[in-house]
Amino acid sequence: MGPELERLILLLAKVPGLGPRSARRAALALLQKRETLMRPLAEALAAAAEAIRPCSVCGNLDTSDPCGLCADQRRDRGTICVVETVGDLWALERAAAHRGLYHVLGGTLSALAGQRPEDLAIETLIRRVASGGVREVILATSATVDGQTTAHYLAERLRATGVAITQLAHGVPVGGELVYLDDGTIAAALAARRPA
Amino acid sequence: MGPELERLILLLAKVPGLGPRSARRAALALLQKRETLMRPLAEALAAAAEAIRPCSVCGNLDTSDPCGLCADQRRDRGTICVVETVGDLWALERAAAHRGLYHVLGGTLSALAGQRPEDLAIETLIRRVASGGVREVILATSATVDGQTTAHYLAERLRATGVAITQLAHGVPVGGELVYLDDGTIAAALAARRPA
Repeated sequence: MGPELERLILLLAKVPGLGPRSARRAALALLQKRETLMRPLAEALAAAAEAIRPCSVCGNLDTSDPCGLCADQRRDRGTICVVETVGDLWALERAAAHRGLYHVLGGTLSALAGQRPEDLAIETLIRRVASGGVREVILATSATVDGQTTAHYLAERLRATGVAITQLAHGVPVGGELVYLDDGTIAAALAARRPA
Repeated sequence: MGPELERLILLLAKVPGLGPRSARRAALALLQKRETLMRPLAEALAAAAEAIRPCSVCGNLDTSDPCGLCADQRRDRGTICVVETVGDLWALERAAAHRGLYHVLGGTLSALAGQRPEDLAIETLIRRVASGGVREVILATSATVDGQTTAHYLAERLRATGVAITQLAHGVPVGGELVYLDDGTIAAALAARRPA
């Protein structure tokens, strides 16, 4: 099959979402769409690798630094939403529910994975908040043990700054059916019940 | 998120095996492995798009024409295994069960999809067989309606050449459990039973 093809399949298999089997299928499909997909994808990968960098303020990925969100003067500079990953930031942006700024931690604290505070973008967050102008920090880490441990740690660290520190609400997902929900979520949704 | 990233995600989403959601995840992972995966993949895609071409004899994809299989003098030039796609050819090569040559049709006849004989590499197959030296043509099309229709059509067309025309056996897959098998396969396996 030739070294070029073997190498391509090997690399495609490392892309999250593709495995060895689907990498072969993808390579074949790409070769069959050489001009419409394969070459454009090669160029898009090279262009993005060249142009896209982490924002030195919030950690978002963008072609400009500060990123488009940090530079956007229409956004509320008084609220910072803290997320684990850029993927979480994108999810929140798609929901269009947060009109303030972000801060990407780069993961969670984790005893198991050996992730310590100094491995995350925590000091830069403390400095951002301490430098003034921030009214509220929204801790939007995952509702997992590590995510909640991280939120708790951040809340403690930020306490001294005096800004409001909030967390996402727990509850029934929109469109979610009770029968498929875990006990913890049901209990949390019940405890946080509100007038209908 | 910048036009470079949007364009990359759009193109990644078109790769078979990835959808819009996994394309975003893949783009993020690629940006995090910029030097070890993203740039190498861009280069591998460009190199493969440049170097790999269909073999003018059998339709296999390779960097040389005729392809490595067609050029390999150790292979039995008297048997041609007819497959639908290059992916099928690869699967047979991985099984290392066929030591002859191949012929890639480029699909199956299909009334529904409007695939006619002239849309497949059938005339080149007839010419290969008619040009002599071929003892056997193995029809290794899929065990689907379209695959079997195509095999039937090819058998008819090749009848006049006088070469042996064979088909893959039906039966219980190796490691397969009867309880999960369809009736057709069970019936075929029973009809083709052999001494234990």
